[in-house]
Amino acid sequence: MKNIKTYIDTAMGRKNGDFILKGGSIIDVFTGEIFTSDIIVQNGVICGVGNYSGSNEVDVSGKYVMPGFVDTHTHIESSMCTPSEYAKAVMPHGVTTVIADPHEIANVCGIDGLDYMRIASENIPLDVKLMLPSCVPATPFEHSGAAITAHETQTAIKDFHGIGEMMNYPGIISCDSEALGKLCGDIIDGHAPLLSGNELNAYISAGVKTDHECSIVNEMNEKIRKGMYILLREGTLSLDIAKLIKGVTPHTLRRCAFCTDDRFVGEIIREGSIDHCIRKAVSYGINTVDAIIMATLNACEIYGLKNKGAIAPSYAADIVIADDLSLNKISKVYKDGILVCENGQALFTVEKTDNSTVTDTVHLPTITADFFNQDLSDSITAIELIPQSIITKKVTARKTDNLSKVCVIERHKKLGTKGIAYVTNYNITKGAIASSIGHDSHNIIVIGDNNSDMALAVNALGKSGGITVCSDGKIIASMRLDIAGLMSTKSAEEITAEHDALYNAAKALNINENIDAFLSLAFLPLPVIPEIRITDSGLFDVTTFKFI
Amino acid sequence: MKNIKTYIDTAMGRKNGDFILKGGSIIDVFTGEIFTSDIIVQNGVICGVGNYSGSNEVDVSGKYVMPGFVDTHTHIESSMCTPSEYAKAVMPHGVTTVIADPHEIANVCGIDGLDYMRIASENIPLDVKLMLPSCVPATPFEHSGAAITAHETQTAIKDFHGIGEMMNYPGIISCDSEALGKLCGDIIDGHAPLLSGNELNAYISAGVKTDHECSIVNEMNEKIRKGMYILLREGTLSLDIAKLIKGVTPHTLRRCAFCTDDRFVGEIIREGSIDHCIRKAVSYGINTVDAIIMATLNACEIYGLKNKGAIAPSYAADIVIADDLSLNKISKVYKDGILVCENGQALFTVEKTDNSTVTDTVHLPTITADFFNQDLSDSITAIELIPQSIITKKVTARKTDNLSKVCVIERHKKLGTKGIAYVTNYNITKGAIASSIGHDSHNIIVIGDNNSDMALAVNALGKSGGITVCSDGKIIASMRLDIAGLMSTKSAEEITAEHDALYNAAKALNINENIDAFLSLAFLPLPVIPEIRITDSGLFDVTTFKFI
Repeated sequence: MKNIKTYIDTAMGRKNGDFILKGGSIIDVFTGEIFTSDIIVQNGVICGVGNYSGSNEVDVSGKYVMPGFVDTHTHIESSMCTPSEYAKAVMPHGVTTVIADPHEIANVCGIDGLDYMRIASENIPLDVKLMLPSCVPATPFEHSGAAITAHETQTAIKDFHGIGEMMNYPGIISCDSEALGKLCGDIIDGHAPLLSGNELNAYISAGVKTDHECSIVNEMNEKIRKGMYILLREGTLSLDIAKLIKGVTPHTLRRCAFCTDDRFVGEIIREGSIDHCIRKAVSYGINTVDAIIMATLNACEIYGLKNKGAIAPSYAADIVIADDLSLNKISKVYKDGILVCENGQALFTVEKTDNSTVTDTVHLPTITADFFNQDLSDSITAIELIPQSIITKKVTARKTDNLSKVCVIERHKKLGTKGIAYVTNYNITKGAIASSIGHDSHNIIVIGDNNSDMALAVNALGKSGGITVCSDGKIIASMRLDIAGLMSTKSAEEITAEHDALYNAAKALNINENIDAFLSLAFLPLPVIPEIRITDSGLFDVTTFKFI
Repeated sequence: MKNIKTYIDTAMGRKNGDFILKGGSIIDVFTGEIFTSDIIVQNGVICGVGNYSGSNEVDVSGKYVMPGFVDTHTHIESSMCTPSEYAKAVMPHGVTTVIADPHEIANVCGIDGLDYMRIASENIPLDVKLMLPSCVPATPFEHSGAAITAHETQTAIKDFHGIGEMMNYPGIISCDSEALGKLCGDIIDGHAPLLSGNELNAYISAGVKTDHECSIVNEMNEKIRKGMYILLREGTLSLDIAKLIKGVTPHTLRRCAFCTDDRFVGEIIREGSIDHCIRKAVSYGINTVDAIIMATLNACEIYGLKNKGAIAPSYAADIVIADDLSLNKISKVYKDGILVCENGQALFTVEKTDNSTVTDTVHLPTITADFFNQDLSDSITAIELIPQSIITKKVTARKTDNLSKVCVIERHKKLGTKGIAYVTNYNITKGAIASSIGHDSHNIIVIGDNNSDMALAVNALGKSGGITVCSDGKIIASMRLDIAGLMSTKSAEEITAEHDALYNAAKALNINENIDAFLSLAFLPLPVIPEIRITDSGLFDVTTFKFI
């Protein structure tokens, strides 16, 4: 009640307020209009929109004032940053809240990973709403570092905002009791590419509320019609906004928001985050204010974030100030009434979080070249990579084709499992690349054209994990990913520079220019994406759901 | 989880479902479109929208299928019915949920009144979400039957859906601690006619979320812009839809819903309830589907009613089937999957609720004619009634003008307080009317041109209360209102007939035809409506907020 009295007194002009934003053009997410007014803020809350003056005025005349943006679905791990560095990257772009699913670290470190992400998110100005991952491990066709059961889910849910993307839609539809047992909490995120008809009815009947996997407007329309919220995604690999924006109509607008899902920090720094989604949507024909409504009010409604997502009395003072409606120059970002970013720079520093429970996660014996020995018959089943896609093709190849050898090695519990296969279209020459990022179990994946470079690349990962590029018996580039083998402890800028150096080094290996040398590897072990995959348990046919 | 499995099995067609609505034209509140599909329902929940067939099909081809309507703000007491009879009246019109503020009975019976309304609402198919009245008594200028303090409010709130209309906006703005102490719960309804600027900012900063008192579009726009939800009202006296519908735009649509506030059951039977609001809105130019969206999805979003307000999987099977889009012929109403109304008739019966704590609420000594004696000077301050309005005018009248004498008598605690005044423009002749409905404290109000008929009319109310019409020493019409002196225990049809008979009887008294003989009386004691009022404490000037 003491707070309410302060808000009322501030609104009435009886108290000064912490500051007054003077004369800005306010994006009104309720009416869709833009109007000029002052805003008074006290104790992190907007108390009044009207005529205010006082000793602490900030002139924002000529600038646009709007609510902070919300990323409705993201895996922070995919940025390769710790939560604090992630915050420093996204907040200058106007993002003040993210709905984060720590699915990747959970597959490596289990509950320890979730605890780390929670603690690391606590002392940063970014509002991180953590969802409890629902699919750890993602499939039974690989060995992950941890498992979270239905029973553990029901206990843990109290510390989370909701249930993260329920990818196991076959389990839901077939009433698998472990899958159903994980359906708890206030909101359940979905993940159901191309699911339709009665199967979609069943999935939604189970209580799933969102989907970020639509690839065509018809799919989006059916899901909206059946009550789902659609999160339009623009990440690093998945670029869906151009395809889906026609599905956003005056009626369906309120059912749509934006997300990035997986986005590398270098792209956040260079291109933006949700501000980039807004620009992309606008470039495909939607009105700017409508795109901002999706990024703010809608996102907050979907995730039950009360008193957030608008510039109005009683709303949290999460405020973005932009020089123009392109949002290319965001001059100020306030979080709960605190100025946290100015002219593209984060103004905050964060104490390091203890990471001792989530480091040194790679457990391997020393690998020798003969670890990768395998007899090769003349005709073999191989994985064909497809340019600009994470889909693969199951092909029959000959021993004499330009084949790259790939191996996935279990790295969590020293189980000694490995799968070896051959890839066409990658064309690596005189070298090898190894990585501890391999969705979703994040075992070690290594690819090369000779066993000794492959062994060198894997051994160079050490206990920390990371990415290494080797050629001719030498390590020519490497990046440590100390946190779970997924995230670096360095700054966003350093990570971006190291990552650029990896790509430069890879060029020396003559890898097919139309294939992303690292992302194509990261998704090769994911046994839910067509058509053929390699896990630590062997070569897997996604069409028949059987090992080959 | 057992339920979820049943829903999934039903959606997949592995279970039959309780029934299938076959081939209806479904109003899609998400896309704004109308499409043809089947609907399968199990255990009160819609499990699938698609192609279904089974042994329990209901052919609704050629008919329109839509979610049940929600009345977002109503005082059931104003229908003059008990909750069960109210349900029988509104449900055939497609209303399946009401947000009810039992403010009237609370002013008479306090917590007992709230308990009665809760118990009486429990066993009816209508979903009654009770709000805890925030203003009991409504003002300090009269004596009510009960008071509910801030302290009591904070204890009681756990049993209510939210806080009922906070009419005491001056108290909020001035930070009155009793008023602020009542601001608790998940949603706080507002009531702030013409409040604007910084005062409106202050009121909203306190956490008030809705307003149903807008009278012009500009007022509505400012309130929407500042984050309020607007409940467009069409009651018995207050007809706001025609004035406000222009404020409903593609953007503001989601911020708007319908309510009736105060609506007599006779009008519900003859004209409808929320279905009438939809027709009215459509007649003033809004699209029918948009009006239905206001009456369903929007209302449910505003009041946090999850999984209600749409025809989609996982939503409650509150379903209205109408022969055409005029909604004049609603052929079926389902509540939680149960057929509760057919062709305008309620199919349910309800056991009577024990009402012993809320009856015999009129406590008066026997009144004699000289109770109303008062010396009259040549020039007096009088109340002028204004046709088709509850606003009054403060005028100076002469002894020789056609004056009606009005008296408000405290009836709750035998305090012996009374206020006598004179009314112009009512013109009652050779008779008197007495009533136990007098907003908001519901003391006895009596009006007449002679003391003996006035005494007869008051005495005839008995302990139960009600309305009586007397002429020339005889009771010519009367209606018992056993529950708190506000609601009849009879059926909706009987109440309507008795009420018609009262109006017929009143005609014999030559009352000004442009003045509503009964409603004008009911609002004469309400000391918050301009310009001059009479309470049991005396004649009150609403402009100066002082007794005369």
